Amino acid sequence: MAEFDFIAWLRARTPADPRVVVGPGDDAAVLAPFSRPVLVTVDMLMDGTDFHVAEVGPRLAGRKAMAVNLSDIAAMAGRPVAAVVSVALPQSKGRGFGEELYVGIREVADQFGVSVVGGDTNSWAGGLVVSVTVFGEATARGPVLRSGAKPGDWVMVTGPLGGSILGHHLHFTPRVREALALHEAADLHAMIDVSDGLAADLNHVLKESRCGAVLVAEAVPISPTAHELSRTSGKSPLDHALGDGEDFELVFTVSPADGERLLRDQPVPGVRVSKIGECVAEGLSLEAGGERRPLAPTGWVHQLGE
Amino acid sequence: MAEFDFIAWLRARTPADPRVVVGPGDDAAVLAPFSRPVLVTVDMLMDGTDFHVAEVGPRLAGRKAMAVNLSDIAAMAGRPVAAVVSVALPQSKGRGFGEELYVGIREVADQFGVSVVGGDTNSWAGGLVVSVTVFGEATARGPVLRSGAKPGDWVMVTGPLGGSILGHHLHFTPRVREALALHEAADLHAMIDVSDGLAADLNHVLKESRCGAVLVAEAVPISPTAHELSRTSGKSPLDHALGDGEDFELVFTVSPADGERLLRDQPVPGVRVSKIGECVAEGLSLEAGGERRPLAPTGWVHQLGE
Repeated sequence: MAEFDFIAWLRARTPADPRVVVGPGDDAAVLAPFSRPVLVTVDMLMDGTDFHVAEVGPRLAGRKAMAVNLSDIAAMAGRPVAAVVSVALPQSKGRGFGEELYVGIREVADQFGVSVVGGDTNSWAGGLVVSVTVFGEATARGPVLRSGAKPGDWVMVTGPLGGSILGHHLHFTPRVREALALHEAADLHAMIDVSDGLAADLNHVLKESRCGAVLVAEAVPISPTAHELSRTSGKSPLDHALGDGEDFELVFTVSPADGERLLRDQPVPGVRVSKIGECVAEGLSLEAGGERRPLAPTGWVHQLGE
Repeated sequence: MAEFDFIAWLRARTPADPRVVVGPGDDAAVLAPFSRPVLVTVDMLMDGTDFHVAEVGPRLAGRKAMAVNLSDIAAMAGRPVAAVVSVALPQSKGRGFGEELYVGIREVADQFGVSVVGGDTNSWAGGLVVSVTVFGEATARGPVLRSGAKPGDWVMVTGPLGGSILGHHLHFTPRVREALALHEAADLHAMIDVSDGLAADLNHVLKESRCGAVLVAEAVPISPTAHELSRTSGKSPLDHALGDGEDFELVFTVSPADGERLLRDQPVPGVRVSKIGECVAEGLSLEAGGERRPLAPTGWVHQLGE
């Protein structure tokens, strides 16, 4: 890891974590041994693709870069532990720009007790690029994979979907606590976070699980922003809920018995768990007004356009 | 981690590793628990800064991105285990460009039994950016830090230095095996890899160890490329050996007894270990022709220019 002002700056602001043996400043960070399986995920975000930094500023860009990775750990029902961050800063920006970026990164990391243990800060003539790698630990129940869904499972989701582009994608709270609470309350067969869109991400689960699913249009919880966006987009609110990306809610499958219990008990404070469909032998389809038709993994809209 | 062709491509080419429970393709990779302290390092390389991809091609860029990280694990005398890779590919390039990049990454990873367990592959309007995060394990002797040098220690180096820009920085083999062999043969007090330049990197060690060092000009092993570069650069070969970056040799300190034994036994096949100086109470200086003068951390040249 290259030396840079930010490493010292970061080190001064990193609270002592007993799991961190050696923090930023050496050639590598050293973490205490992991007694459980180690979860590792990485996401790289680029200006102009994942955010427009001129509009949203570096703090929200940093926030999102950390949050999307924590969402991946949540999707496995893991506990996030530590992170390393590599950054290419635009040369045209000053030190304050980089500091604001790190403030955003740390805000989300602190919320979940994640230590930023190292990094590599660079500047160049190009646009802002942030890559975050997060390490987590599986709980005693083990990680929840994409591959465990079975025909007959209920398909459930943690919150309303669609219209994330209006702001949610920058401000969302990764569903780390929710995933742990659900994992404790029920035997989660398969799980994923909604980053590409409900239909697309559910399709990833179905592919890995070698089964299908039927979603019920009336059961899909639609966010107020999906309704708002629908007024100008020419798409229905349901189109947005099925096709929009970056909701970062959790989609998971459970046995009907567990599903009924989750619906009744609602074990996650402040988050309403909904049943949106059921797993079947094969295919992905949508039931609307009693009629069933195929649902393209890219969502309802794309299919209509075909 | 985003879905992309390359993840499937990578998965098909990743040999089975018993430590990898879940490889690329899920929300996070899952590694078996680590019974030893975990080493984590990240480096981000950018086109135009760390290489010129139009000149060297994507394979050598990928090679370097993995090798610089393995060099950081070597600097702690650790065993590299796994890596994740995030990439921003230029949109103007085709799929072959990305594949070549991954071929370079895997070439070096395979050489050291490192599994590439996950990644995030993106494309954008900007230049090539590659960020690699490597996880390693400390050996039973523990990681070698920068902070353990003591006055009286010998300062030693694994190979000749200088002129890396002529090609070595793209083709070097990270000193992973050498570090492990040295760590087994002697009690390494402190170690670092030469990435910023001998004087600069030794200075990092001295700062963390709160001591100083005197280097002996005649003892510094100078690479043939330092001589070659010197013919046109206006600097002496020694200037290059002290100031050039990216040699990726190891600089370490040991007790005089261990140092004498290493010099005599030369425990690393094919690599000559040299004594280049000794640690003292404070300051960094260079002894040349019996005369001692301060050595700037940026190297000899910079000091002459002041």
